[in-house]
Amino acid sequence: MNLQIHSDRITAELEALASFSATQAPAVTRIVFSPVDLQARSWLKQRCAAAGLTVREDAVGNTFARWIGAEPALPAVASGSHIDAIPHSGRYDGTVGVIGALEAIRALQDAGFNPRRSIELILFTSEEPTRFGLGCLGSRLLSGTLDLVRAASLRDAEGAALDQVRTRAGFSGPLAGVALPPGAYHAFVELHIEQGPLLERGSIPLGVVTAIAAPATLHIEIEGEGGHAGGVLMPDRRDAFAAAAEIALAVESAARSTGAVDTVATVGICEVFPGAVNSIPSRVRMTADVRDIELERRDALLATIRERCSAIAAARGVTVRCEVLNADAPAQSSPLVLDGLRGACEKLQLSYKCMVSRAYHDSLFMSRIAPTAMLFIPCRGGISHRPDEFASAEDIARGVLVLANALARLTE
Amino acid sequence: MNLQIHSDRITAELEALASFSATQAPAVTRIVFSPVDLQARSWLKQRCAAAGLTVREDAVGNTFARWIGAEPALPAVASGSHIDAIPHSGRYDGTVGVIGALEAIRALQDAGFNPRRSIELILFTSEEPTRFGLGCLGSRLLSGTLDLVRAASLRDAEGAALDQVRTRAGFSGPLAGVALPPGAYHAFVELHIEQGPLLERGSIPLGVVTAIAAPATLHIEIEGEGGHAGGVLMPDRRDAFAAAAEIALAVESAARSTGAVDTVATVGICEVFPGAVNSIPSRVRMTADVRDIELERRDALLATIRERCSAIAAARGVTVRCEVLNADAPAQSSPLVLDGLRGACEKLQLSYKCMVSRAYHDSLFMSRIAPTAMLFIPCRGGISHRPDEFASAEDIARGVLVLANALARLTE
Repeated sequence: MNLQIHSDRITAELEALASFSATQAPAVTRIVFSPVDLQARSWLKQRCAAAGLTVREDAVGNTFARWIGAEPALPAVASGSHIDAIPHSGRYDGTVGVIGALEAIRALQDAGFNPRRSIELILFTSEEPTRFGLGCLGSRLLSGTLDLVRAASLRDAEGAALDQVRTRAGFSGPLAGVALPPGAYHAFVELHIEQGPLLERGSIPLGVVTAIAAPATLHIEIEGEGGHAGGVLMPDRRDAFAAAAEIALAVESAARSTGAVDTVATVGICEVFPGAVNSIPSRVRMTADVRDIELERRDALLATIRERCSAIAAARGVTVRCEVLNADAPAQSSPLVLDGLRGACEKLQLSYKCMVSRAYHDSLFMSRIAPTAMLFIPCRGGISHRPDEFASAEDIARGVLVLANALARLTE
Repeated sequence: MNLQIHSDRITAELEALASFSATQAPAVTRIVFSPVDLQARSWLKQRCAAAGLTVREDAVGNTFARWIGAEPALPAVASGSHIDAIPHSGRYDGTVGVIGALEAIRALQDAGFNPRRSIELILFTSEEPTRFGLGCLGSRLLSGTLDLVRAASLRDAEGAALDQVRTRAGFSGPLAGVALPPGAYHAFVELHIEQGPLLERGSIPLGVVTAIAAPATLHIEIEGEGGHAGGVLMPDRRDAFAAAAEIALAVESAARSTGAVDTVATVGICEVFPGAVNSIPSRVRMTADVRDIELERRDALLATIRERCSAIAAARGVTVRCEVLNADAPAQSSPLVLDGLRGACEKLQLSYKCMVSRAYHDSLFMSRIAPTAMLFIPCRGGISHRPDEFASAEDIARGVLVLANALARLTE
């Protein structure tokens, strides 16, 4: 089988996707169910239809484009990722896995491959937590991992409920119908940029992901006492932002002192109320994103952060509430899919590195219902979630070639 | 002379002013030149006209309501304050000095007092820095303290220039025409709530202000490196918010360690970019408000903060830019006006405390062109810039009575 990957077509399609953005290029902003997200989805469905795929959408907007195999009753082999993008980010995160899966299917079609199992491209809704505060919304629901009461309670910053927002976007029907049973897929593979520097540093073109780190998100709310910045003496203060600053540094130092290189923690959001030059902050809303590939170590870090919050609250006379927004377990990749990926690399004589993913992916949830693994390609400087995120056309094409080979193996 | 202060009328007028607010009661939000500010100004001008005062407005919206004296050519005696209110604040800051001056004039009129000098109520534009980032905009221009090139460069958060905003609000003409020469007023007195706890703690009804603290505002901008919260290991990070947190704690500890009770410093604004749960902050914008009644000590504190910023920037590999937005000199009150206030208190057999103001007032700038002093009344718990800011009707009436007496003395 002679697989031809059309690198120019991939570049043009990534370019087209990047044009569906709420911010000026090179920055990409594509919030789930925003007008540009809906335009991008519509464009993608046309591309899938043009490739002869059968398109289906579920109640939360997960989109499935299937190339029907010779034995359609067998569980399919699937590949995909997401196209939503956080504010002011880049054009490769998620999209490489979506366009890559489409190109892999087209390459197999063009080579005259006749799959026994169906091959399906999956577009997951809202991998990014931007709009509803919870990442991997689509794959959590698809894998039955998200409690439906919790799903019904999700609201965006404008206070609109998920149900309201998805209905307005054209996705209706009960969310209970989204979950697929274990066994629905024979295998799932996600192609993705590394979002870290290891492949580039090692000049290795491919990463076979053996485990995905377990992320947890804490919402931290601090209540102190406001007042006039001139009128209240330093010893009389209960400044919510000073407490928040101390907590943020405690989060950083706790993550640094686990002794494990894979532990990371980030305060990415900090909102100060009332937010005036001459007012002592009365309230702060903050998030801490905590990740590790070992569940116990991550949970110990969470506990340390909560203890430090309590100690800081007591010392400063403020109240600190910590709420765990999500705390998922790490995932080990499936030997079946790992074999498929490693076999493809070896057959193509491409070097690869076995590695873990510290970033969060839909694969983490797909692994609950399907044998799953991921394939990484390098990205420049390890940079992601920024306008200067970049993966070369050559690296992407190489990843798609391995993906196509692996999909072919897995359909056997 | 038998002065009757109508406490019910003051309460009703403060209530009426509080109703011109962009947020729900009890929180008051009245940003300069916003619709509610313009409504409040219009209402106030009607009240002044009803008291027979001659109303004039300058190009920046400072409003002057004059009760013409027997010798109109003599420099007038003035009293006033501001009505703009920071987001989610209360109903007494500034307004007590405006409604109080109006009530003092009405009480003198009702008592048949015939002033030799004119008595004028002044409403100053934008004492609060909320909209243009610079406090005491009106009194700075009135006193010729604000550079006109700087004034022309002021913009609000939407990017609208001061000239554009004031013109839209109905105030046009060159800002150069706003400044009044030294000698334009014989005296200026500002009645204000203390915004601190000392009068209440000491059960003292009145504070005669002998000096006003020197405030300075630093704008601090931190540039680090963004990235994916999962992908970038802790040692590889240049997290702008972690640096900001360290700077905020340095500001607090520097203010605490001057050894002087009157030193205060506050980080009231902190904006984090891009502000996503799973993104390492790349940029932070922060303010530090630094105050002292001694100029050298305050400037030494500013220098310490800048040194700490440089050290933190170097240690974390981020860049930190500090810009001094304003750094005014403290003001000593005028013996003439202090005598007027103390004389009034003594004649009325009311106890008072001589004290300094750590808060920022239009009087700081009026003192550059006119003999100036302030009169404080207690406010509950020393609380200000909050919805639960409160001064009792009795305390306000007592302050207005002293003010009216002092104005009468000063017109002689």
